[in-house]
Amino acid sequence: MRLLRIGMAQVNCIVGDLDGNTNKIIDYIDRARALGVDLVAFPELAITGYPPEDLLLKPRFIRENQERLKTIAPRCRDITAVVGFVDSNQDIFNAAAIIHQGEVVAVHHKMYLPNYGVFDEDRYFQRGSQCAVCVINGIGLGVNICEDIWYPSGPTALQTAAEAEVIVNINASPYSTGKGRLRQKMLSTRAFDNVAIVAYVNLVGGQDELVFDGNSLLFDERGELVAQGHQFAEDLVVADVDVDGVGRVRLHDPRRRKEAIDGQKEVVRHVVSLEGPPHVPKPSLPPRDSQVYPMPAEVYHALVLGTRDYVRKNGFQKVVIGLSGGIDSSLVAVIAVDALGPDNVIGVSMPSRYSSVGSRRDAQIQTRNLSIPLMTIPIEKPFKAFLGTLAGAFRDTEPGVAEENLQARIRGNILMGLSNKFGWLVLTTGNKSELATGYSTLYGDMAGGFAVIKDVPKTLVYELARYRNAVAGTSIIPQPVIDKEPSAELRPNQRDVDTLPPYSLLDPILQAYVEEDMSYEELVARGYPPEVVHRVITMVDRNEYKRRQAAPGIKITPRAFGKDRRLPIVNHYRES
Amino acid sequence: MRLLRIGMAQVNCIVGDLDGNTNKIIDYIDRARALGVDLVAFPELAITGYPPEDLLLKPRFIRENQERLKTIAPRCRDITAVVGFVDSNQDIFNAAAIIHQGEVVAVHHKMYLPNYGVFDEDRYFQRGSQCAVCVINGIGLGVNICEDIWYPSGPTALQTAAEAEVIVNINASPYSTGKGRLRQKMLSTRAFDNVAIVAYVNLVGGQDELVFDGNSLLFDERGELVAQGHQFAEDLVVADVDVDGVGRVRLHDPRRRKEAIDGQKEVVRHVVSLEGPPHVPKPSLPPRDSQVYPMPAEVYHALVLGTRDYVRKNGFQKVVIGLSGGIDSSLVAVIAVDALGPDNVIGVSMPSRYSSVGSRRDAQIQTRNLSIPLMTIPIEKPFKAFLGTLAGAFRDTEPGVAEENLQARIRGNILMGLSNKFGWLVLTTGNKSELATGYSTLYGDMAGGFAVIKDVPKTLVYELARYRNAVAGTSIIPQPVIDKEPSAELRPNQRDVDTLPPYSLLDPILQAYVEEDMSYEELVARGYPPEVVHRVITMVDRNEYKRRQAAPGIKITPRAFGKDRRLPIVNHYRES
Repeated sequence: MRLLRIGMAQVNCIVGDLDGNTNKIIDYIDRARALGVDLVAFPELAITGYPPEDLLLKPRFIRENQERLKTIAPRCRDITAVVGFVDSNQDIFNAAAIIHQGEVVAVHHKMYLPNYGVFDEDRYFQRGSQCAVCVINGIGLGVNICEDIWYPSGPTALQTAAEAEVIVNINASPYSTGKGRLRQKMLSTRAFDNVAIVAYVNLVGGQDELVFDGNSLLFDERGELVAQGHQFAEDLVVADVDVDGVGRVRLHDPRRRKEAIDGQKEVVRHVVSLEGPPHVPKPSLPPRDSQVYPMPAEVYHALVLGTRDYVRKNGFQKVVIGLSGGIDSSLVAVIAVDALGPDNVIGVSMPSRYSSVGSRRDAQIQTRNLSIPLMTIPIEKPFKAFLGTLAGAFRDTEPGVAEENLQARIRGNILMGLSNKFGWLVLTTGNKSELATGYSTLYGDMAGGFAVIKDVPKTLVYELARYRNAVAGTSIIPQPVIDKEPSAELRPNQRDVDTLPPYSLLDPILQAYVEEDMSYEELVARGYPPEVVHRVITMVDRNEYKRRQAAPGIKITPRAFGKDRRLPIVNHYRES
Repeated sequence: MRLLRIGMAQVNCIVGDLDGNTNKIIDYIDRARALGVDLVAFPELAITGYPPEDLLLKPRFIRENQERLKTIAPRCRDITAVVGFVDSNQDIFNAAAIIHQGEVVAVHHKMYLPNYGVFDEDRYFQRGSQCAVCVINGIGLGVNICEDIWYPSGPTALQTAAEAEVIVNINASPYSTGKGRLRQKMLSTRAFDNVAIVAYVNLVGGQDELVFDGNSLLFDERGELVAQGHQFAEDLVVADVDVDGVGRVRLHDPRRRKEAIDGQKEVVRHVVSLEGPPHVPKPSLPPRDSQVYPMPAEVYHALVLGTRDYVRKNGFQKVVIGLSGGIDSSLVAVIAVDALGPDNVIGVSMPSRYSSVGSRRDAQIQTRNLSIPLMTIPIEKPFKAFLGTLAGAFRDTEPGVAEENLQARIRGNILMGLSNKFGWLVLTTGNKSELATGYSTLYGDMAGGFAVIKDVPKTLVYELARYRNAVAGTSIIPQPVIDKEPSAELRPNQRDVDTLPPYSLLDPILQAYVEEDMSYEELVARGYPPEVVHRVITMVDRNEYKRRQAAPGIKITPRAFGKDRRLPIVNHYRES
C-alpha cells in the first residue's frame, strides 16, 4: 500500500506582499513537515497574492517574485511542495512550481486562462502549451492550476492518461453563492472520470472586491470527498490517501481510462526521483471537523472576512459607520463588530429634522447591543446653512431631490471629516438593490472607503439580519429595525416604496436582469408586470455613472457590480 | 487603368444606439454613392459603437445588431460597403461585413484581439481563424480589423499573398499622444512591404474615457500617404487610386512578394463578382485639406471632443464648473465653452475665508472673457456650521486636513446641489498630477460627473492654456491665472509645493512611473533625487483608493488612470 500524506495549505496571502507571503509559505512547509506530510500544496500565485493586476506589468515585481521562489525551494527538504508563482520566459505565465529535495523539478504553466467575470488573465499571461507528470517517490503527480481542471479534456485528462495518480489543482477561486456546490460536483466528476486523487487547494482571504473562501477539497479516485478545509479561514488540511487504490480501479475498468488518453501528445513526462525522504512512521492524524457554512451563514462569513481583510490589509485599525436606525446600517455595524471587535467600530447618528424618534432610538439600541460607542452629530445646523447659502440659487424652485441629497452629503462630509481627523475608515451601508436602481446619493450615503453589503440584495439583507439574530439567540439587531418600513428619511413621511417597487418584486427582477442578462421580453414572459420591468431596467441602466464612483465592496453573488459587470456609461441601448 | 474611388466614412457612432448608427451608416452610403464612390468603409463595430463592453453579453443585443446589418445590406446598390458589426456563430466575433449588390458577400472575423491597456476583447470575442479575399469588379480586396494590421505576418500579408490589391482596415483606435505618428509609420510600412493600397478607417468621437480621433489614412502601394481624414471630426474622405499600380510594382519586384506568400493556407479566396455597377464617368473630386493637429493643439481638440460627446451623448444640455481662479478650472471652463458654447456653461465661485482677492477676481475675469454666467456662493456659513457641529467631536485636536477637506466637500455639495436642482452636469477640474499623488479631496473637488483634464499633467495644463491663448490672440485665460503660484487655498498661505515637488520635477517622474512602469532604481538611475522619487511613488501607490472613486475622464496619454491602469487597492508591494 502506497500511502501519501497530502497537506493542503489554504493560506491568506496579501497582494504584493512578497516577503510576507514567502514567510507564510515557509512557515506552512515547516508545519506540514512536522505533521509528516509528503506533499504540501499552496494556492495559485501564492507568492504574489491574487490577483496582482497591473503589478504584473512591472518587470521588477516579476523578478522579485522569482527570487522568492528561490528562497522557498531550499526549505523543501523531506517534503514536496507545490507553490504558485509568476514564471517568466520571454512572456509571463501563471505557474506552479513543483519543489522536491530543495530543487524546482518542474513548472506547470496554466493552460486555460479565465478572462471573463472578474478575471483578466489574458491581459497578463501567456497560455501554457504542455503539462507535466512527475513521478515522486514512485507516485505519479500531475499539477495544474484553477481553470485548468474545469475542462474535461484539459490537463487533468492528459496527466492521468500519462499515469498521474494524484492531481494537485491550485486555485484562487473567489466566493459567490452556489459556487461551492458547483466546484464540488465538478471535482468529484473529474476524480471519478480520470480515476485519480484530486487535491483542490484554494486561497483564502479578502482582496478588494473579492473574497476567496478556502474550502479546499480532497477527492479519492472514486470521486468521494475525503477531506475538506475550513471556509473563510486559513487552514492546513492533512489527509492520508492510498495511491494504490488508483491502480486497482484503473486495472479493473480500463475502458474508463481509454477516453482520457486521446491527445496525450502534449504531456511531458518528468521522472524526478524514485527515492524519497527516509521513511519514518507517520503519526496518526488528529480527527477534525471542517467548518463549511450553509446559506445565508456562508454569505455572512464572506462579508465578515471581506471586511476584516480590506480594513486590516489597508492598514486601518478602526471603522466608522453612519447609523440611521435602518436595517442596512445596523447589519453593517454587526458585521464590522464581528470582523474587527467592538473596540474598533464607531457608530455615528446624524439625525435631521426628518429623522423619526424610532430611528434615533434604534440606532442607540443597536450600539448598546454591540457595546460600541455612538456619537450623535445632528445635521440641522449645516443643513440650515446650506439652505440659506443656496437660497438665492434655488429661488422660485420647489424643494425636491436637491434638498434631500444635501442632507445625505452633509452626512458624508461629517463621516469623512471624522475619517480625516481620526484615521477611521468609513464603511458605507448601501445594498445591491439601492445601488442597482440608483436609490442612493453620490458623495452622500455612498461616501466611504468600503461598501460592505454592496452586493447584497435588500431581501438578503433581511435574511442575514435574521440569521445573525438567530445565532446570537437574541435580537442583536433590534426587532423594530427589521420590522419597520424602509425609508431614507430625507423628507417627511418618505418610504422606499414611493420610489421603488416592493423589494420582494424588485430583487428577483434585478437578479434576472443584472446577473443573468435576461431581456425585457424574457422578464415579462416570466410573469413580471411589464411596467415594473421597464421601470426597473431603466433605473439600472441610467445609474451606471453612480456605480462607477461607488466604493469597492464584497462580491457575493455570481455577478457583482464593479469589475464583474462592465457597462458603458454612454450607452444608448434601450432594453424596453 | 483600373481606377477605384474609395470612401472612408469616419463616423461618430454611439455605443448601443443601433438605430442611430444604422441610419448614419445608410446616410453615408448614400452620400458616398452620390460622390461616385465604388467602395465605402466604416469603422470597427460601427453598428454597435465601440466599445460596447458587457452589452455584448446580452443575446438580444447581438441579435438586434445582426438585424441592423440586414437593414443596411439592401441599401448597398451600385456601391460596395465594409461595415463593422458583431457576428454570431456559436461564439461571437468582432466582424466586418463586405456588402456588394445588396448582399453580404463575405465576413471577416478579427484575428488579433487586443486585451491590454483599455482593451478587453478576449473577454467577449472569439478569434477569427481565416481571412478572405474578394474580387470585386476585378479588384482584389482584403478586409481586416484594427489590431489585425499591426502584425506583419497577420491577415494583411496573407490577403495580399492571395492577390488582394486593396486592403481595407477598419478601426476603433483611441487617441493618445504620439499614436498618430506611430500608426502612420506602421501603415506606410505595411502598404510598402505588401505592395498594396491600404485604407485605414478610424472611428471618431468620445466614449466614456476614450476619444477616437478619426484621422483616417489612405496609402498607395509604395507606402505614400495619398489621403487623410480630419482629426476629431466626422469625415467622408474620398480618393481615387490606380489599382494597376499594385500589379506594376509586384511584377517589377517579385522577390518582395515571395516573403508574404508563406502561410497563405489560411486564406479563403472568395470571388464575388466580376461585373460591377454600370460604369459611369466619375465627377472629379474637389480638393480638400484635412485638419490634423500638432501637439498640444491635438490634445486640446481631443479634450473638446471628449467633453462634448460625454455631455451630449449622456443627454445633458449644460455643465457647471467650480471656478477657483486657478489654472485648472480656468482651462476646463474654456474647453467646456469650446465644446458646448457659452450658453451651456455656468461658472460658480465659492470663496472661503482663505480665498485670495486675486483668485476671486480671476474667476470673474475668466467668466467675463468667456461670456458665461458666474454664480457666487460663499461657503463661509456652511463651513462655520460644520465647525460648530463638529466642535465636540474635534475637541482637543489641531486643525488640519479634516478642516481643509470640509471646505472642498462643501463646494462639492453645492455643485451637486445645483446639478440636482437644474440638471447640470458637474465637470471636475483635477489634473493628472493631482490625481496621481492624491492631492485632491474625494467627494470634494473630485465630485462631479466628468473629469475633463484627469489625464493631463499639470505642466501640460500650462501648455494648453498658452496654446489656447495663442489661438485666441488674447489672454482668454487671464495671464495672472497662468503666472500665479498654484494653491488649493484651503488654509492660510497654502502652496502646492508645500506638499508636492515642483511640477517640473514631479511630472516627468510621474510619467516614467505611471506610463512606463519604471522602477525606483531606474528612476534614480535617470538622475532624479532618490528621496523625491520615493515620496512620489509612495503617494501614487497609496492613493489608488481615491482614483477608484474618481469620475471618468478623457484619456490622452499612452496610459491613463481608469481602465487603462488596473492596480489593486490592497497592495503591499513597495517599490522603494
